[in-house]
Amino acid sequence: MKYDLEHDNLIQVCKNASYDELAILSEEIREFLVEKVSKTGGHLASNLGIVELSIALTRVYDMPRDKIIYDVGHQAYVHKILTGRASRFDSLRQYKGLSGFPKSRESEYDAYDTGHSSTSISAAYGMALARDLKGEDNEIVAVIGDGSMTGGLAFEALNNIGARQTNVKIILNDNGMSISHNVGASSKYLAKIRSSEVYDKTKLSVKSMLHSVPLVGDAIKDGIKNSKENIKHSMLGEQGHLFEDLGITYLGPVDGYNIRDMVDVIKAANMIDGPTLIHVITKKGKGYEWAEKYPRKFHGIGPFDIATGNTLSSSVAPTFSEVFGNKINQIAALNKNVVAIAAAMGTATGLLSFWGDHPDRYYDVGIAEEHAVVTAAGLAKQGYIPVVAIYSSFLQRSFDFIIQDVALQDLHVIFAVDRAGLVGNDGETHHGVFDIAYLNMIPRMTVLAPANGPQLEEMLDYAVNIEGPVAIRYPRGTSAITDSRLKPFNGSNIEITSGKDITILSVGNMLEEAMSAAAILREDGYSVGITDVAVIKPLDNSWHDLESKLVVTIEDGVISGGFGSAFNDEYKNDDFDIINIGIPDRFIGHGKVSELREECGIDGKSIARKVKAYLERKA
Amino acid sequence: MKYDLEHDNLIQVCKNASYDELAILSEEIREFLVEKVSKTGGHLASNLGIVELSIALTRVYDMPRDKIIYDVGHQAYVHKILTGRASRFDSLRQYKGLSGFPKSRESEYDAYDTGHSSTSISAAYGMALARDLKGEDNEIVAVIGDGSMTGGLAFEALNNIGARQTNVKIILNDNGMSISHNVGASSKYLAKIRSSEVYDKTKLSVKSMLHSVPLVGDAIKDGIKNSKENIKHSMLGEQGHLFEDLGITYLGPVDGYNIRDMVDVIKAANMIDGPTLIHVITKKGKGYEWAEKYPRKFHGIGPFDIATGNTLSSSVAPTFSEVFGNKINQIAALNKNVVAIAAAMGTATGLLSFWGDHPDRYYDVGIAEEHAVVTAAGLAKQGYIPVVAIYSSFLQRSFDFIIQDVALQDLHVIFAVDRAGLVGNDGETHHGVFDIAYLNMIPRMTVLAPANGPQLEEMLDYAVNIEGPVAIRYPRGTSAITDSRLKPFNGSNIEITSGKDITILSVGNMLEEAMSAAAILREDGYSVGITDVAVIKPLDNSWHDLESKLVVTIEDGVISGGFGSAFNDEYKNDDFDIINIGIPDRFIGHGKVSELREECGIDGKSIARKVKAYLERKA
Repeated sequence: MKYDLEHDNLIQVCKNASYDELAILSEEIREFLVEKVSKTGGHLASNLGIVELSIALTRVYDMPRDKIIYDVGHQAYVHKILTGRASRFDSLRQYKGLSGFPKSRESEYDAYDTGHSSTSISAAYGMALARDLKGEDNEIVAVIGDGSMTGGLAFEALNNIGARQTNVKIILNDNGMSISHNVGASSKYLAKIRSSEVYDKTKLSVKSMLHSVPLVGDAIKDGIKNSKENIKHSMLGEQGHLFEDLGITYLGPVDGYNIRDMVDVIKAANMIDGPTLIHVITKKGKGYEWAEKYPRKFHGIGPFDIATGNTLSSSVAPTFSEVFGNKINQIAALNKNVVAIAAAMGTATGLLSFWGDHPDRYYDVGIAEEHAVVTAAGLAKQGYIPVVAIYSSFLQRSFDFIIQDVALQDLHVIFAVDRAGLVGNDGETHHGVFDIAYLNMIPRMTVLAPANGPQLEEMLDYAVNIEGPVAIRYPRGTSAITDSRLKPFNGSNIEITSGKDITILSVGNMLEEAMSAAAILREDGYSVGITDVAVIKPLDNSWHDLESKLVVTIEDGVISGGFGSAFNDEYKNDDFDIINIGIPDRFIGHGKVSELREECGIDGKSIARKVKAYLERKA
Repeated sequence: MKYDLEHDNLIQVCKNASYDELAILSEEIREFLVEKVSKTGGHLASNLGIVELSIALTRVYDMPRDKIIYDVGHQAYVHKILTGRASRFDSLRQYKGLSGFPKSRESEYDAYDTGHSSTSISAAYGMALARDLKGEDNEIVAVIGDGSMTGGLAFEALNNIGARQTNVKIILNDNGMSISHNVGASSKYLAKIRSSEVYDKTKLSVKSMLHSVPLVGDAIKDGIKNSKENIKHSMLGEQGHLFEDLGITYLGPVDGYNIRDMVDVIKAANMIDGPTLIHVITKKGKGYEWAEKYPRKFHGIGPFDIATGNTLSSSVAPTFSEVFGNKINQIAALNKNVVAIAAAMGTATGLLSFWGDHPDRYYDVGIAEEHAVVTAAGLAKQGYIPVVAIYSSFLQRSFDFIIQDVALQDLHVIFAVDRAGLVGNDGETHHGVFDIAYLNMIPRMTVLAPANGPQLEEMLDYAVNIEGPVAIRYPRGTSAITDSRLKPFNGSNIEITSGKDITILSVGNMLEEAMSAAAILREDGYSVGITDVAVIKPLDNSWHDLESKLVVTIEDGVISGGFGSAFNDEYKNDDFDIINIGIPDRFIGHGKVSELREECGIDGKSIARKVKAYLERKA
């Protein structure tokens, strides 16, 4: 190894090394990434694709004075390595360890925290407005993928920046795919540019233009203002109208693996005092055979074997996503009215077989959760039954549209709310802990939560056959729980056992924690009942006759507005006391789900402890 | 009057009358609109602008087989008149009367319900997918303003439709302003086209092209496929690249007051089997002197005098919006870190004086609530204190960004949540009844609600001086309530009186209903206390010692996840009983706020009745 990634000052290396040396650095970072992520799991393909680009940005920009915002942020591993965090990579995405996303609290080089798509240009706009108010002249840079560009927020920001001519640099990291493939017209548009012949010509003209201009300090920046049009025209060729029409200067395309070219173009962009987009062509998974071959698989991956690319996961039970995908595919075979909508996450949400078997009824709308829901409303309005599969935390973006377009029109749309509850290593931006609360408040919604795979299947059958909007929320991963007392789902909650002292109402996948808590409490002599709360909304009103002195609600969602809260609303004046167990009112970090449950006090042991403490205090 | 708008079959008139006759119809509809809206209030300027366009659409399209979706929908009055609802216009926006927005349940000619901006193209896409699955060939038409086009959702839909080449017609109703003026680069782009010389040439070529093609039935539609490129090129001129780059055929611009031209171009568009945008130039307020002169004032207006254009409102008390605007303007004069962000509603939210006095610190981002919040986060990240003024129901769109960008980064952003609670005549799409619930669940949020104008001022001072995200929610209109016991706000709730039997906890502007309920209950001999709940979150934990046997929470928001719900979470096991009064779990229609409060049971009388019934049942 030429460089000691964990101890060298890599920012200085980026700034001072020769381009040949930077090529070596790139390769060493790639090796480091593959090795570390093979152990911790994480977002690999996008980081392999962006190594040289991150180096180029670090060479040109003066961080933290200049602000670089990585859109989504799962591609910021290289940036983390370059800014002094390589030594902590064993802890990547582990409890209390390095986050898999940019975090200002982790480093002053992380200018803005991201996690959900398409925010970077808006955030850059806000930061640039602040810079301008202060009369400062640092650069604000948004690094955004072509996938994230399909999000409407990115357009809102481009539209605003173009009109105001705010000085923001946009690095379009174009790898030709979002998480899976890209679907929008803008992607086709970019692909046309990618394949155009302008490429070489552009490179040449950038170089010649830069060579004809001395590149030292602000004096030049002013002096060169007259040349802005020259810069633009010499680099633009016939491309980039789409951005130019919005008032954004377009530069590129440029090779994302040629650091020298990228540095030249970025420097040229910095001479333009206004919004400028640099189109960089990259490849997901670059440099690691298996990730290049299977970029989708290596987008976000668990621990894997470097030589074979095989994941080391020992789980054989199907995930909830797989159960959902297979079942909805079966349902669609029988019911021609069922259609599926994905927002760039068809594979991750299990819809691959549906896509294969019913391509005419499968719609991937891109990273556009809002559009996904309104499209579903349009389909439902015409008599189809759309199943919209979106992660719980991403569906937060569709909140207004679930209310306005779906519920207000009382449309039969099924929301498959994947990754509900604590998601583990992706951490605070990705936990799906708000969904029960934000869905529960919407009139006409039915909200269901399965305890295990078979129940999810039963719920899908049920959801297709009722009316109005239905949400089914289920977690990341699998649930191994089986219990002969868990009768088939028929639209009602399922009492597993009754108890004289305590009744535990356990929402969906919390059943195993509930059972574990009950076992502990029974050892202490309490009579404990458990009901599987499969139906969160409409609220079950049959509990007024409960014999128990204490009811304990358990859910892996926020307490405010959650199931427990709805239970309190109905039963607050009943004779039994109530304890609500759920995600406390703060943001929860990353780590194993088991670690996070313990931190939140929603694991079996913690629940039992809380219940005992309460009963002892009351006694 | 040539036409009897209330009894003639105007659809047939649109289809069969001569263009000269349609010009007369247009004028008569305009007169009708001005007269009716001068009495009921409503959205006038946008409807005056679209009379001829609505007639042209009704002439060409075969509704309800063809589906016309009016974006936002407040400009659908003309459509309602043309489709048999003129006789009900006295009831427009009145309780149980005609809605001010499209409603499928009102007429089969209302293809899709709207109310919030920028959904029409997505909805049209969904409906077109359904049509294609069914193998039908009806037309799906989205009528969208240039203002709504700045919403990211519209871009997501264009991007998707362009890629898939779905047959959707988009009528771009370009009046050069959204609710106030437009701000985006796309608007500048459209303005450039408006002022171009292509206009006449276009008209000529459409005509000649149409005259050379027989226009009968599907055979022609097929036969003409070869001509698609001809149609496009003959009409396109040098314009519309922005749309063409996204795969959308651009036709226009065409004069929105020349029905014949519009009919020709729309027919031409129908011959194209793919996404097509027709750019129509209109003028807000067209034909009514005062509305042309003051389109912003006549966007949404109360009853007014036709001759002078003066509104008839008798209210002299400043509205909450005005109080907010004046106070934040004063604060900004003293605190240079305070900046204001509007989403195309600067005037309506009271920010006009701020804009005038601090133009460098005022940002209108267009109809783009998501972008508004992320821009605010960017500004806050760099040390500014952004005040984001958005209506409660529109802020639903920003839910994910309030969580991810603002709260997760613990940024000091102030949300001025206007039109919170029941808004009255705009009805179900516009009631701000979810905000307490969707803000309460977000960690780190402070949520405040003033009882009256002076308290709003105090809260703004307070909000600027604390840390982290703060939301202040206040209603449409004024609050006349004053009470010497309402001490100045200092961050705590304000006990007005204590009561041995009953304690009413009244959120924000519900104070007058609370006082009215208390007065009734006192007549019946109950000892009733009232506390003004100014601080919804963090929840006041000082009530465990209350002497009352019954606590009544009152809020004009949904119960699920609202203040009452949060109160239950904390106090469910206390000795007192609890009644939660709030908006029930269903959608609430339009009418006077007083009528709607009665319907919801949140007016003083209903509250007193419920409380008495409860106490009598318990006795």
